[in-house]
Amino acid sequence: MNRTITLRDVATRADVHPSTASRALNERTRTLVNAVTVARVLKAASDLGYQPNALAQGLKVNRTMTIGMLVPDLTNPLFPPIVRGIEDRLTEAGCTLLLANTDNAEEKERAILEVMARRRVDGLIVATAQREHPMLTRMLRSDYPVVLVNRTADEPPLPSVSGDDHVGIGLAVRHLASLGHRRIAHLAGPRSVSTGLNRHQSFLTWMDGCDLPVDPDLIVFCSWFTQQAGVMGFRALLDRNAAFTAVVAANDLVALGCYDVAADRGIRIPDDVSIVGYNDIPFTDRFAPPLTSVRIPHYDIGVKAAELILAEIEDPGTGGMSLRLPPELRVRGSTAPPAA
Amino acid sequence: MNRTITLRDVATRADVHPSTASRALNERTRTLVNAVTVARVLKAASDLGYQPNALAQGLKVNRTMTIGMLVPDLTNPLFPPIVRGIEDRLTEAGCTLLLANTDNAEEKERAILEVMARRRVDGLIVATAQREHPMLTRMLRSDYPVVLVNRTADEPPLPSVSGDDHVGIGLAVRHLASLGHRRIAHLAGPRSVSTGLNRHQSFLTWMDGCDLPVDPDLIVFCSWFTQQAGVMGFRALLDRNAAFTAVVAANDLVALGCYDVAADRGIRIPDDVSIVGYNDIPFTDRFAPPLTSVRIPHYDIGVKAAELILAEIEDPGTGGMSLRLPPELRVRGSTAPPAA
Repeated sequence: MNRTITLRDVATRADVHPSTASRALNERTRTLVNAVTVARVLKAASDLGYQPNALAQGLKVNRTMTIGMLVPDLTNPLFPPIVRGIEDRLTEAGCTLLLANTDNAEEKERAILEVMARRRVDGLIVATAQREHPMLTRMLRSDYPVVLVNRTADEPPLPSVSGDDHVGIGLAVRHLASLGHRRIAHLAGPRSVSTGLNRHQSFLTWMDGCDLPVDPDLIVFCSWFTQQAGVMGFRALLDRNAAFTAVVAANDLVALGCYDVAADRGIRIPDDVSIVGYNDIPFTDRFAPPLTSVRIPHYDIGVKAAELILAEIEDPGTGGMSLRLPPELRVRGSTAPPAA
Repeated sequence: MNRTITLRDVATRADVHPSTASRALNERTRTLVNAVTVARVLKAASDLGYQPNALAQGLKVNRTMTIGMLVPDLTNPLFPPIVRGIEDRLTEAGCTLLLANTDNAEEKERAILEVMARRRVDGLIVATAQREHPMLTRMLRSDYPVVLVNRTADEPPLPSVSGDDHVGIGLAVRHLASLGHRRIAHLAGPRSVSTGLNRHQSFLTWMDGCDLPVDPDLIVFCSWFTQQAGVMGFRALLDRNAAFTAVVAANDLVALGCYDVAADRGIRIPDDVSIVGYNDIPFTDRFAPPLTSVRIPHYDIGVKAAELILAEIEDPGTGGMSLRLPPELRVRGSTAPPAA
């Protein structure tokens, strides 16, 4: 019985899935596995005298050690910390980042993808926003490992890393409920984008969980995640003349749009209406009043996205993993109990 | 007389420098030359029947069409619009951007430069900050075209693109002088960085130009361009007990540090002291009070840096050009006439 010890043997002995064993054995992906499991896998490999497949290792020679990244717009304050996290982690692994802005424009994305393919990137990290996207389908047919960041795909499932939006919206709704708000409005993001749709669905779920009524008149879908869309959305909400004392905004820029309209119409924040933002982008603590917001660990999301793509490259097809990082509520001056 | 028509012949006929003729003839660099000159060069080339050197064109085959960029820290709000401008312009030219953060750490810069060299980037855009830098010297000895962005080098001279800091500090000082301020303090950046040193020198020049006294007690060099350094700097300034009614801050983050200290010590802005920032990063208009700041066209700086590196790659050594883009003053609530 002198047969070669395989990864499967190690996995069986450690009582884990082979893909977990693979991740645990690889220094570049080890942090994706919990430390106890790593120790068990390493012991199993050592006990069995496991040697990684030299042929598979040789494949690395063909790698360009570059990872492509598509962001909609780097000047959106959401993305710099994500990109920074990705770049820091890739640098550690000896890889570099090819960066391109797409403006969520399909034509531009197609052109950039062609360039990335010609550069023979080892993998792609995609932060572009549309839920239904021909590009994603094309990428899956190609050979490139893909990881989504700050978004998810309905079909087919792809590995993704984002903040846990369900938990995040729960923090916002429960905070307002605990202050005594009952008529809470929601300025949602566009339904065509996973973050817009998912936060809206979570809003409905959490309102129900807090035994609060959901009035359809108090839900407005903004056209995009921008300040201007927030201005239009909050005006539309006010013009419906349905009473409310608080707003859960789709993100901080939409919340800033509410600030603008409130100033125009003599509505005081938080005296007349409380506002909660989302993302906690830089300088929310400097707004007047400082904005209560749900803080998403964007840098950590970037680090995890880099680790996932490195794992996908190392061990294709074992991914499909979806990581949701926990957000935190930052309570500031834009929320208060409703007026008596 | 059937000799080959050269670039020099075209330049002579168009009455321009050969490097100008070269830029005008190249679609990728044409926008660096004014339109009238471009038309004259194109007409001269057409009149003479000029054919670009096929051998030189052939060299392009060896290009990777990637440009490396070193930024200190992408999460500094200064850099995203610069990177965006660079990336947009490079995409137009069919090039992609390799991005890396250096944290101004020499060891990290060295490692990243090695990676960039292995990736055979066609050129480097460098936004790192130190004035004296072994890296720059090394880069010059290598074959890579280099363009500096948002900084300059003393020696040797390298092509660079930045805001016109002398004009910008002039806008700040003259604005305060026109409001009636005479005792104006300066929270300068570190002297080890070109932007810190140059803005300080400009401050002295403009104070003199406005017939205002410069009190050495009213000048503090901050340790870095951060909010925390601004806090330390403004505390040091106040603790000197020299009277002043206004502050020109090295940048917006240093100005924010002043806001923090002012809030702590009960100093009202702008009633007790006026503050002017620098850069006009996103959300300065949202600070309490909104910050008067010198707006630098960061996106345009990025576009021009991309054009300069493309020109350097096309036509090495004709560079050394230094572009200074004009800033604008944005007057907001942090500046007012001094108390009577």
